[in-house]
Formats: sequence, structure tokens, C-alpha cells
Amino acid sequence: MEGGVPQVLALTMGDPAGIGPELTAAAWQALRAGGPAFMVLGDPALYPGVPVRVVADAAQAAAVFAEALPVLPVGLACAARPGAPDVANAPAVIGSIARAVELALGGQAGAVVTNPISKLVLKQAGFAHPGHTEYLAELCGVPGREVMMLACPELRVVPVTIHVSLRRALDGLTTDEIVRCGRTTAEALRRDFGISAPRLAVAGLNPHAGEGGVMGGEEGEIIVPAIAALRGEGIDVTGPWPPDTMFTPTARARYDAALCMYHDQALIPLKTIDMAGGVNVTLGLPIVRTSPDHGTAFDIAGQGVADPSSLIAALKLARDMTRNRSAA
Amino acid sequence: MEGGVPQVLALTMGDPAGIGPELTAAAWQALRAGGPAFMVLGDPALYPGVPVRVVADAAQAAAVFAEALPVLPVGLACAARPGAPDVANAPAVIGSIARAVELALGGQAGAVVTNPISKLVLKQAGFAHPGHTEYLAELCGVPGREVMMLACPELRVVPVTIHVSLRRALDGLTTDEIVRCGRTTAEALRRDFGISAPRLAVAGLNPHAGEGGVMGGEEGEIIVPAIAALRGEGIDVTGPWPPDTMFTPTARARYDAALCMYHDQALIPLKTIDMAGGVNVTLGLPIVRTSPDHGTAFDIAGQGVADPSSLIAALKLARDMTRNRSAA
Repeated sequence: MEGGVPQVLALTMGDPAGIGPELTAAAWQALRAGGPAFMVLGDPALYPGVPVRVVADAAQAAAVFAEALPVLPVGLACAARPGAPDVANAPAVIGSIARAVELALGGQAGAVVTNPISKLVLKQAGFAHPGHTEYLAELCGVPGREVMMLACPELRVVPVTIHVSLRRALDGLTTDEIVRCGRTTAEALRRDFGISAPRLAVAGLNPHAGEGGVMGGEEGEIIVPAIAALRGEGIDVTGPWPPDTMFTPTARARYDAALCMYHDQALIPLKTIDMAGGVNVTLGLPIVRTSPDHGTAFDIAGQGVADPSSLIAALKLARDMTRNRSAA
Repeated sequence: MEGGVPQVLALTMGDPAGIGPELTAAAWQALRAGGPAFMVLGDPALYPGVPVRVVADAAQAAAVFAEALPVLPVGLACAARPGAPDVANAPAVIGSIARAVELALGGQAGAVVTNPISKLVLKQAGFAHPGHTEYLAELCGVPGREVMMLACPELRVVPVTIHVSLRRALDGLTTDEIVRCGRTTAEALRRDFGISAPRLAVAGLNPHAGEGGVMGGEEGEIIVPAIAALRGEGIDVTGPWPPDTMFTPTARARYDAALCMYHDQALIPLKTIDMAGGVNVTLGLPIVRTSPDHGTAFDIAGQGVADPSSLIAALKLARDMTRNRSAA
């Protein structure tokens, strides 16, 4: 509780045929004693292995959390079969997200944590958004303001270009977009991560950060002006750094987040360091949103072998961010 | 010794104003008792902190190695000043490399291990080769056959494109070049690393390896045909793998070397895992050649703070590779 408002987290259902339901049950088992408390917006029938309690709001969820998994009901169109997603359940999957955002925006939940969805399944149902994150930004009334961060205890990375081919990432990289991501990241580190003077490190694009232009000009043309602009806003920014040496333990100690120019420049070091515990965080929204850093894993769904570490880390990080934001 | 031939390694001088001399002295201290024995082809005056013995060949070097650093003399044009490279010494730097290759090719040294050189300094002296590796391939009579591998105990990576901008790497990536690198890597793993049935993992180029073409087509157009061609040669190859998840400990256990599409895709995971111990290995040559995975570090030369781990690892790996090759 912070200021009387229940800081219970709203966890979305995710695709009911994926590993979301079993991860949700495992996360509840892991957190029931020490928290953070959460309620899942899903179908009560999805969680047969744990005691389930249907709740109407966060206060009820907080009251029962130590004893049972609190479920705020979102009915499915047809029974879920692990590994066999059904497009008929897409409206419920989407509805769970929309309701979670509504609760967080209205202060009836501390943050939104999302279970994995299948873009392919939702697309078949006519879902027009490129992904989870863009949909959340639209629900929050800030389309295009989202910034993706991946975080583990040893490293935070922010890819400036994300789910596009490497060639399109090169073509689409702009000074403005680096500045926007850097500004949003610095704000979030202050407000949500409790870092009063955040330090950003900006990666080069090319090997050796271009080595003075010998191996590529984007550093001078695009990245250096972005660093200058961010510094002009009073942000502590260094770079462009040679990408290959900026993720060593020594280098990581010098910054709070690394701004990366493309998906794998950010994701390779993060997943190499911590495959299981990475958390996806959406910055730039009026609400706190985290999610585990993996997909629906239909191939192993229902077998009880999925690793709940990332979802548990996502719930804990959402709790910490919500506390920091309340205290700010 | 193998079959009566002294397997003493030939270590080049490197730039005498860089950290090469102090690393050489430190490596000798670390290895004098247990080996591998080496002789440095340099100026005897460069190593004031350790006992130095001028030698004429590998047999003399082997005999004195426990007592003194064996130096096969290569005279400098002017005295070296740490941190202040002098183009007048470039002929000696180049001569050291040429002599080391000559010894290895003639069987008078087990392998060539190179200390770092400055491309800039050598270029000023008229050195026409893009770098160390290309020069070695030419000295060995196999220009264009070289393949670069970076190795640490946990990971071996082979970048198919190397010291070019990311855009040029994209433009220059071809099926033929992936096949050439894969074939040379498999041969080297068998002959020099003692792996009888080497397993190669080929990285995708794009996020999620293109996710079926949604995020880039190079996987289908360029990489998949290369994998098929390598398999046609009887090589155990898998891929294209999503780049971000192929360097986790679990994923690394499934292959002996990763074929990477660009410099940082290979170097980010390697340096993130093991900054100090990475070794640069040139495959595809008639001789064994390794080198530390760092530069001349003029900025810290002569201060005694440079880390000799990578040079020591390079010497040990050269010894192991030479033994495997002799036994093959």
C-alpha cells in the first residue's frame, strides 16, 4: 500500500494456449508469501494447479493473495488447449490488456504486467497494432511515445530501432529518434528507477564505433549530434562507444542504461548475460508496464517446464517502479 | 618437442612503443616454469625488467627459456619511447612478422604469435596491407584464404564480414563467403582444435533471424543456401539462429563455433563473456597463428598496467593448436 491505494499489480492473461497460465500459477506460488501481490485478468479455469479466488477489485485481491491466486474474470470464448491457440479467444486476450490498462490509468492497479501474446493469432483476429507495446501506448493515449527497455540486474538496454530488418534499422536511424529515446530513458531512470542523476551510454553503430569514419559515417552524422542534443538538455550522456567493449562488467559500471542502435546490439549482451531474468519495460507511458522477455512458447505450453523467472522478475520490477513513481 | 622439432613459438615484437614489450615480459614471467616456451623476435633493449638472452634459433631458446626471455634480435632504427610510436621503426616491426612467418613455414618455430601493431603507423611507412592478418596470408602464399576466429574458453566466433561498416557488411555478405568461412572453420576445428566432428552454428543476420522473412530476407536468400552447401560437404551445421539467444550458456553447449554475419555480432558476445582472455586466431593458413585480442594501447604503454591475460592465452592456444596439428 502507498498512500492508501492498493499497489496490487494487474497481470494480463496473455494467450491462454501459451505458457502464460502456468507461469502465472508459478509466479503466485513464488510470491504469495512475500509479494508483490497481483491479480490476473483471465479465465478462472486456466489455473487448475493452484487455489483460485475470483475477485472484483485490487482490495479483494490484496486480501486473498496469500491464500489464493486472485482472478479478475475475463471469460474465454472456448476452452484453452495448451499449444493450440484459438483465434476465437483473441477478443478475450485483447480485452484483458485493455482492462488492465484501464485499471492502472484509473489508479485501481499499481502497474500493468503482461503475459505473452501471439502477434500472429491476434492479427488473424483483425488486431491492427504491430505489437503489445504499440497497443498499450494507444490505450494510454500516447501513440508513438513508447520506448522499449530490457532490464536485468546487471544491465539495462534501450534499442532505438527494434523489430525491423537490420537494413531497415540502418535506413531508419535518426538523430531525432536517438534523442527521443535518450530523453525518455533518462526521465524513466529518474522517476521509476530512483536514479537521481542517470548516466546514459550511447553505442556506436559500426565496428569500433566507425574508427573515426574509416568504418562508417553514421557515428559522426547521426549519433554524435544526438549526444550533443541530449547533453544540451542536461542529461549525462557518453559515447558513441565501440559496441563490442561496452558490455563488459567494467564498462557496465560506468552507465545506468545503454542506448543501442539496433535490436541485436541490445539483446545479444542482455541475453548472453541473463537469459532467464530479463524484463521488458515500456517507458514513455503514463503507467508502469513490464513483461517477461519471452514469447508464448506454444511448443512447450502445458508441460510445466517453462521457467517463470522472467515473469517473477517483471512483477518485482513493476512493484519497484511503482513505488519509486509514487514516492517521486 | 614433437618428433624432434622444437615447438618453440615465435612471438613478434609488435609496435615497440605499445604495450607489446611489457606484455612479452609479463608472459615470460608467467610461462617460464610451465611453458609454452617462446622466443620474441625483437630488440633486446625492449625488455629491461626481465633477464634477456639473445638466441640464434629455437633450440637455444628452448634451452634458456626457464632462465631468461629468449630474444632473436631484430634491431630498431631508433630507441622506442612508450606511447610515442615512430614510423622509422616500421620496417623492424614488419621485419619481425616476416621473419616469424619464415621460421614457422620452415619448421623452425611451432607457430606465430603476434603482438599488436598500429595500422596507422605502418600505413605511414607505406605498408599496403589492410592489416596483420592479410599480410600473414600473403607471406604464406595464400592471399584471401584467411578466416578470423575469436576464441575464449566459453565461446568461439567467426565473423564472416569483419572490419567494414555495418552497411558494407550487409552489402558484402554472400553465400560463397559464408561457405568459405564455414569450410575453413570446420577444417581448423578438426585439425587444430582436435574436434573430430565439429558442430557449426550459423547466426541469422536480422532480429529473430528474420522471423520467416517479416524482418529481413537475407536469411532465406543468402544464409540458408550457405548452410545447405556446407551440409552438402558433410559438415554438421545448424541455423540460421536468432542472434540474441545463441550465445547463452545453454545455446553455446550445442556448437563448437558460431559463424557470425558481422563484426559486432561476433565480438559483443565474446567480449561480454570474456574481456581479457579472448584470443584472435587466423584460420586458413599453412601455419598456426594467434594473437591477443587487443591493440597497441599507446595510451597506457610503459606504465606496467596492461593485462597480459590475452597474450598468455594466445601463446597457450598456439601451443595447443600446434600440438594438435602435429598429431593429426
